[in-house]
This record gives sequence, structure tokens and C-alpha cells, in this order.
Amino acid sequence: MRTVDWDEDLHCVRMIDQRILPGEFNIVSFSTYQQLAVAIKDMVVRGAPAIGATAAYGLALAAVRSNASRKEELLQELTHAADVLHSARPTASNLNWALQRVISIARQFPGTADELREGVLIEAQRIADEDIAINEKMAHIGAAIIEDGDTIIHHCNTGALAAVDWGTALGVIRMAHELGRRLHVLVDETRPRLQGARLTAWELEQYGISYEIISDGSAGYFLSTGQAQKVLFGADRVVANGDVANKIGTYMLSLAAQDNAVPAYCVVPTSTIDLNLDDGTQIPIEERSPDEVLALEFQGQRVSPLGAHARNPAFDITPNRLVTAFITENGIVYPPFKANLQQIVLPGGDQI
Amino acid sequence: MRTVDWDEDLHCVRMIDQRILPGEFNIVSFSTYQQLAVAIKDMVVRGAPAIGATAAYGLALAAVRSNASRKEELLQELTHAADVLHSARPTASNLNWALQRVISIARQFPGTADELREGVLIEAQRIADEDIAINEKMAHIGAAIIEDGDTIIHHCNTGALAAVDWGTALGVIRMAHELGRRLHVLVDETRPRLQGARLTAWELEQYGISYEIISDGSAGYFLSTGQAQKVLFGADRVVANGDVANKIGTYMLSLAAQDNAVPAYCVVPTSTIDLNLDDGTQIPIEERSPDEVLALEFQGQRVSPLGAHARNPAFDITPNRLVTAFITENGIVYPPFKANLQQIVLPGGDQI
Repeated sequence: MRTVDWDEDLHCVRMIDQRILPGEFNIVSFSTYQQLAVAIKDMVVRGAPAIGATAAYGLALAAVRSNASRKEELLQELTHAADVLHSARPTASNLNWALQRVISIARQFPGTADELREGVLIEAQRIADEDIAINEKMAHIGAAIIEDGDTIIHHCNTGALAAVDWGTALGVIRMAHELGRRLHVLVDETRPRLQGARLTAWELEQYGISYEIISDGSAGYFLSTGQAQKVLFGADRVVANGDVANKIGTYMLSLAAQDNAVPAYCVVPTSTIDLNLDDGTQIPIEERSPDEVLALEFQGQRVSPLGAHARNPAFDITPNRLVTAFITENGIVYPPFKANLQQIVLPGGDQI
Repeated sequence: MRTVDWDEDLHCVRMIDQRILPGEFNIVSFSTYQQLAVAIKDMVVRGAPAIGATAAYGLALAAVRSNASRKEELLQELTHAADVLHSARPTASNLNWALQRVISIARQFPGTADELREGVLIEAQRIADEDIAINEKMAHIGAAIIEDGDTIIHHCNTGALAAVDWGTALGVIRMAHELGRRLHVLVDETRPRLQGARLTAWELEQYGISYEIISDGSAGYFLSTGQAQKVLFGADRVVANGDVANKIGTYMLSLAAQDNAVPAYCVVPTSTIDLNLDDGTQIPIEERSPDEVLALEFQGQRVSPLGAHARNPAFDITPNRLVTAFITENGIVYPPFKANLQQIVLPGGDQI
């Protein structure tokens, strides 16, 4: 099934609840965009492409639930819903990209309010369908860089669960596996939310791909002892100069890759590339609740002292100099990134 | 109280059980060296200086429990006990250093078997007492590099719990605090055993030092955004060229420090410096049970899928080029380390 999908009968959005995987596989439904915004914030769904598609469906919910009879009224409600959905998570580019794409079409829409209601849903469905097609294409393109026998260090979760299907970096790994390449994945557990240990490990189990979970701090050990040949990750936002906002820990992983001359690839659909920002310092970094760091149990005991404080930035910036290449649905982009990213995004036609 | 101590009445070794802190503060006693070797392996006690002192007490237990009436017989038993204790953990230098110091004295001992029994205990006590004095001296020397207002990133636990008292890197921080410097510590939680979140946070609470726990992968974010002015860690073994074996994650942390021109200090007593090895590739790296990575609970759920595999190297090698200086009880050692470490270890007289 898809990570996020539209329920034709009940006119609501269905998603796999990613907070409780792999312990439980549960499908949850949301019937208002407000609920959906909370679900994005709480990380029922996460991953840049997945929250893009989810946000588009959020506008479909806003349209379907609206009582507006005039198109202008509906448009106003949609714009408000887009603001609410946009504020759910500030860092990922795709959220804004998907909302802008739907709103832009709604603004130019020639028909009635009822036709617009349908039009918004159709556009959301199109974004979800395209997401699968784009990610599958990206996986094919990226599989070319994976060599038989490679051990790959992978950060966070970038698989089917991070998109509508296939995913980004993990999509590349899955495609290389399906094409018959023998490979092994060292899965960064990815503290604090443990998307690697929980979600990537669970996906790799499904695909039958050989893997081992490692603590984030040990990636450098495997790189410096020649036990990994590639580093792969996705991104929440890539900006014009090639700086990358991605899950916290990506920067240190990329540094360790470079220090050992191991190539580090960032796998992103062009919808994640935000050419409006010049460099990584301009990307807003979400800082989440300290509880995500503190509420950990180990051997049946709460880990940290009661009353302990924590900091919890959810993303960091990997400077462009640490990225070997970007793998996109329009091809592989090598440095100089400033010139080459512009080439690959604009002609693709997927950007507004 | 001391992290590890000799019980005069019961002739056994008492230790704080570091596996269950901070949830429970419990003192455990061991009456044979075999039990003590298991306790070192299970990490009831950890930290290079602490396991050095513990191993010396292990030989005291072997001596006290021995029925040997002839000195040669006792010496043979002690040598066997030293082998068993040495095999408990392969990476830390201090374990071997303490065992060799006691065995060397035992070999040259002029008295009877009973006198040797007492002599071994006295030497173990001396190692423990010296450990406190050395660490306090090191803390004074190191406090000079801490500036008022510093935020310090600290890895693993290197405090009183990692030694008999005071500790290494955390001892420096504690001393700077006692000398009135205002400082803040960003505590790497230090997966997989979480010595930072559990033990360092608990110690900092006791000392009244301001701190926040961070996920290991986020240290790079704080360094690259100018939120930390120093990086401090201890070591399990430093070799002749200045390469450092320390808790897994130290290499990536040091890389991130260097990438942002933040100084990274390694705080070690000279007993941790092993001039018999030329460089870090010669240091044996302990790989511990995958369960330490896998047996984690988050929000009441087991994290990883059942049947998941993991790798768990306990240490990594930080190359000398990433270390700004070593802080020892004999002074601060700057590059070139190969020449300067030799200077500081030999005249100190503490090495055998």
C-alpha cells in the first residue's frame, strides 16, 4: 500500500502510522486538514516527499469539507489551510512546493467552486502519482552508481515510508538490489527518533536486503576501516549552492565520508531543491521537543536523570563541498552545483 | 564515595553499579577476581582509570583469597589472575598498565607469601589513591584552557564514575566550575550505552553545572552554528604518535570540531598513554554484543524489528591530526605528539 493515500469512499486521508512501526502496523485516517497538520507535526508521516503529498491531500480535505459556494471564498479557505499546513514543519522544501503547486492551480482555475473542489483533489492525486513515478525513475538513475559488493551507509529513513512509494536514497538501494547487485546496508539508527533502527530496518527486512543497524557515532569507524564504499542520504531541502538540510547527523556522516574518500550521494527529487535560497544558512532549522531525546528507555530504565534538559535540532546543514553528487529524477548532478542544479531543476518542468 | 573501593572488613571490592544509574544508586560487592573480571566485562564499572584501579584490586582479591603458602605459587596465581582480568576488555590501556605495575612489584617482592599478599593490596590501594591525586592535578592543569562563558561538548562519561574520583575530561570541567568559571556542557548522549545521558548528566546534576543532553549526531550542528567553543573527551588508549582510541563517536566529533576550528582536547593520565604501539591501527578495538544497539525502547516500544542484526564497535580511532592537545597530570602536550608525548610520559615516573 501507499504511505499516504486518499480514501475514495470516506473522502479522507489514510496513512501508515510511522510513530509505532515496527512494533505495530496501523493505518490511521484523517478527515480535516487541521488533523492532518497535527499528524505531520507529530510525525505520523515524515520524509520530505511524503509530507509534500500529504500536504496536497490536506488541501483536498480543506476543499472537500468546505461549505463555500463561491470560488473566491473557497480559494480563501484553501489559502488559509495552506498556511496552517505549511507551519506544521518548517524545514522540508516539499511541503511548501506541494502547497504552492496546488494553490497556484486553484488561483488560475476557470470553473465553479464545485469544480475547483474536484480540481484540488485531482491535483493532489497527481502529485502523489507523480511522486511514485519520479522516485522510481530516480532509483533507476541512482542504481548506476551502486557497485556489486558495495556496503552502503544510509542515514535516517528515505524509503517507501518517506515518500508515497519507493523513496529517495533507499529507493536507489532497493532498485540496485532488484537489479541483482549484491549489497549490504549499514543502517544509522538515527537518534533521536530512530527512523533508521525502526523504519529503514523494517523496510530492508521486507525487501530481503542484507543490513546491520549501527549507532550514528560508529559510521566513522566503518568508513575509516574500509568497511563501507558509499554513503547515501536524502534531503529535506537542497538550496541553490548545493547545501543540504537533512536529518540531524548527516553533516558529521558526510564529513567522515570525505575524510576517508568515500563518495556521499544525496538523492532528491527536484521538488526538494529550493533555488530561492542561496545557501544553507538561510534554511530554517526545526528544533523539536527535548522529550524526543530524553524519553528513552534502556534495559527497562529511563535513561536520563529526572529534570534533565536537552536540545533537539531535527536537521543540520551539510555544506556542498561534502556532497559528491545529487541523484535526481532528471539525472545525476556533479559540481559545480550552483550552475548544474539550476540546469536540472528548471528544464524538468516540475517546479512552479 | 569512591567509584571503586576496598572493603577492609569483608576483604572485598565495592563499586557503584554503573549499569543502572541514574535510575538506581546501588553498591555491589565482589569477593573474587573472577567475579570482578565479569563485572568489568559487563560494565558494572567502566572508564579507563576506573578499570585500571579495579583490575589492581582484582589482583588484591586473588592474593587475599589464595591458599598459597609459597611465594612462587602465589605469584603464579597472580599471573593467571592478571591474564583473566586483562582479557575482560581489550582496548583500555590502564587495565594492562595497572596489572603490569602490580605484577612487576610482586615479581621483585623480597618477603614471604603472606607479606606479598599484603603488598599486593597495598599497591592496589596506592594505585587508587594516586588515581585521585593524578586526576585532581590534571583537572587543575586542564582548567586553564576553559574560558569564562565556554560551552563545551563532552563525549561519553569521563567523570568521577570513570575514575576512582574526579575523572579526566569531566574532572577538568568540574574544576573550572569550582574555580568560578561560568560554563555550559552539551552532553553527547553516547549511544549505544548512553554513558553521557545516564552518567555524565547525573554527575553534572550533582555538581550543579549547567548542561543539556544532545544526540551524538547533533554535535556537528552546534559546532557549525558557533554554539560550542571547546570539545573535551578522555581516552581508553593513546599511542606513541598521538592517535587516540576512545568511545565510539569520538572520531566524528573531533572531525566536526576541526571542520569548525573548535579546539578538541583529550584529557588523559599518563597511565593511558601506551608508547609500545606506534599508531592507532595497532590498537585492538572491542566489538560488543549487538544487543546493546538493539535492546532500546522508545515510547514504550522495542525500537528495532525482531530478528534485526547490528554491529557494535565500542571504540574508534581519532587520528592525531584531529587532537589540539593532550591534557595530562604532567602538563599539556601539543604537537608534534610523537616527540612531546615521550617527553611527558617517561620523566613522570609513573610508567613501568
